[in-house]
Amino acid sequence: MARFQPKNPDYREVATDTFNQQRAMQTLGISIARLQPGEVDLAMNYRDELTQQHGFIHAGIITAALDNACGIAAFTLMPAGAGILTVEFKTNLLAPARGERFTFRATVVKPGRTLTVCEARAYAAHDGVETLIATMSGMLMALLSREGGATDKAFAPA
Amino acid sequence: MARFQPKNPDYREVATDTFNQQRAMQTLGISIARLQPGEVDLAMNYRDELTQQHGFIHAGIITAALDNACGIAAFTLMPAGAGILTVEFKTNLLAPARGERFTFRATVVKPGRTLTVCEARAYAAHDGVETLIATMSGMLMALLSREGGATDKAFAPA
Amino acid sequence: MARFQPKNPDYREVATDTFNQQRAMQTLGISIARLQPGEVDLAMNYRDELTQQHGFIHAGIITAALDNACGIAAFTLMPAGAGILTVEFKTNLLAPARGERFTFRATVVKPGRTLTVCEARAYAAHDGVETLIATMSGMLMALLSREGGATDKAFAPA
Amino acid sequence: MARFQPKNPDYREVATDTFNQQRAMQTLGISIARLQPGEVDLAMNYRDELTQQHGFIHAGIITAALDNACGIAAFTLMPAGAGILTVEFKTNLLAPARGERFTFRATVVKPGRTLTVCEARAYAAHDGVETLIATMSGMLMALLSREGGATDKAFAPA
Repeated sequence: MARFQPKNPDYREVATDTFNQQRAMQTLGISIARLQPGEVDLAMNYRDELTQQHGFIHAGIITAALDNACGIAAFTLMPAGAGILTVEFKTNLLAPARGERFTFRATVVKPGRTLTVCEARAYAAHDGVETLIATMSGMLMALLSREGGATDKAFAPA
Repeated sequence: MARFQPKNPDYREVATDTFNQQRAMQTLGISIARLQPGEVDLAMNYRDELTQQHGFIHAGIITAALDNACGIAAFTLMPAGAGILTVEFKTNLLAPARGERFTFRATVVKPGRTLTVCEARAYAAHDGVETLIATMSGMLMALLSREGGATDKAFAPA
Repeated sequence: MARFQPKNPDYREVATDTFNQQRAMQTLGISIARLQPGEVDLAMNYRDELTQQHGFIHAGIITAALDNACGIAAFTLMPAGAGILTVEFKTNLLAPARGERFTFRATVVKPGRTLTVCEARAYAAHDGVETLIATMSGMLMALLSREGGATDKAFAPA
Repeated sequence: MARFQPKNPDYREVATDTFNQQRAMQTLGISIARLQPGEVDLAMNYRDELTQQHGFIHAGIITAALDNACGIAAFTLMPAGAGILTVEFKTNLLAPARGERFTFRATVVKPGRTLTVCEARAYAAHDGVETLIATMSGMLMALLSREGGATDKAFAPA
C-alpha cells in the first residue's frame, strides 16, 4: 500500500512529462526506473563523459540525479497545475561513485502545501554488488500560480 | 595580497591538471576563469542541453559547478601529492538560473590538514545584469596516501 | 548605509520583543549585541553549564545561537504582523568553542516574501584573540497569517 | 540482531560516561533512553525554559539534542581511546516542537575510520500522539590521538 495519497490523479503522467522536459537529464543519461506517490527511483549508466579525475562519476553528477529524484518524488504529491523548484539540499558523499550502473532513490519525508522535505540515497552497482555512495536531504517548493504554471515571480525566495 | 599561502609551489599547475582530468567538466562546458591560493572562479555558458523544465540551467548542474569550484579552491592549499574528495555540501537555490553566462566563485573558509571548509556562490549574467542565484557551503578531504595519490582505501569515510 | 530597507518601521522593537519572548535565549544567556536591518550580532558568555565533554561550549548551543541570529536578522526585514520560523540550516564546526565570550553574526543573503536565506558565523574570544569557530547557512519562513500571528496551520511544511 | 559490531567492547560504558560529562545535556534535561551499537535514543521533557516565542521548544535546542544523539551513535562504533567531535550537520524542521516529551533517534549510516555519517529524527509526543518534527544528517570525526584522548591539535579541520 502506498504511504501517500496523490492529490493529482494524473500524477504519473505529469511527473513523467516534467522529467522528460529536462534536457539536463537526457544529457546525463538519467531515466525514471520506478515511480510511486512520494517515491521515485532514477537510474543512470556509467559514462566516461561524467567522470572526475579518478575515473569515478563526478559528485556533482550524483547530486544532480539525487536532486532530481527528490524533485520528482515531491512533485507526485502536488496538486494539478503546480510547478516545482528545489530550494535547498545537502549531500553527504560516502564512497566513490564506482560502478556500471547507479540508482537514485528518493522518498518524501514530509509533504506540505508550500514546502516538501525529501530524502534520497544513491547506490552504485559494481561487479554485482550494490553500495550506498551518497545521501541527500532536500526541500522543494510548490509553485501555485493562478495561471497554472511557474512564473518568474513565483521563484522563491525572490 | 593573497589571503592564503600555498604549501605546494606548483599549486596552479596541479590544480589545473586535476581540473582538466575531470571529463564531467568538459561535458558541462565548465572552465577555470581565475585561480588564486584558496580562491577559484569557474565559468560556464548557457546551453540548452543543461536545462530543466522551464528552460533554466538545472539546479544539479549549478551544484556540480559549485562543488567543483570548492574542490579546486581547497586543492590549491593542499600539499604536493595529495588527492582530494568532497565529503559533503549544502546548496541554497536563491533564484532561477537564467542567463547567458554563469560564474561560480569559491573561497576557502578554513583550510585544514584533513578537512577544508569552503563557501561558494553562483552568479548568472543575464542582459548585462549579474544575479546571485545559489550559495554552497562544503567540506573537502585531503587524501594523503604514501603512494602519492588517491587510493581506494583512502576514500572516506569507508 | 544599510544594505537592506526594512518594510516594518518598528522592526527594531518587534525583533527585540520577539527575541525577549524566547525563554531558551535567557536560559542560554544569549543577548542581542547589535541589530541592523538584515544584520544581527548576538553575544554569549562562557558558562560551565553549557559545555561538552572537553569543557568547550557544546556544538548544539553554538548552533542554537547561530540559528537565532539568523532568525532575528531575517525577521528585521519582514512586514508588520509576520511571524517567523526556521525551516532548515546547516552548520560547519571549524574549531573548538573555547573562550570567554562568543559572538554570533548573521546576515541576510536573500530576503524573500516567503523564504529568506541567511548566513551566520560564530566567533570565540579567548585570551584576547578572536577565532572563527562555526558557520551556518539557513532558511527562514515568514508566517503571514491574516490574524497577524503564527497559527498552527501556518507551520510549514505541514 | 545489531546492524553494527562495536570495536570497543566497553562501548556502552564509554559512551554513557562521555554523555554524562556533557554539562549542556544536564542543563537541557536530556538523557539516554536507549543505546545500541550505532543507534541511540535520547529523551527530553518539555520545559518552559527551553521555549521560543510561541511556547514551543526552540529549534536550536531540538538541534542540540539531535546533534548529541548523532555523536553518541557514532561514538559507540569508535575504537577504545578515541575522542569525537561533530564536523557538520544539517537540520530540516518539519513541524513545531509542541509536546510533553521529545525523542531523538540517531542511526549510523556509514561508519568510518575518520569520518562517520549519521542520520537522526526528532519526535514530539503530544496528547499521546507522536509527530516527526525534525531530521538531521551529520558527520562526526574520530580523534585518534596517541595519548588516548582528544588533544587541541586533533581538533579538525585546523
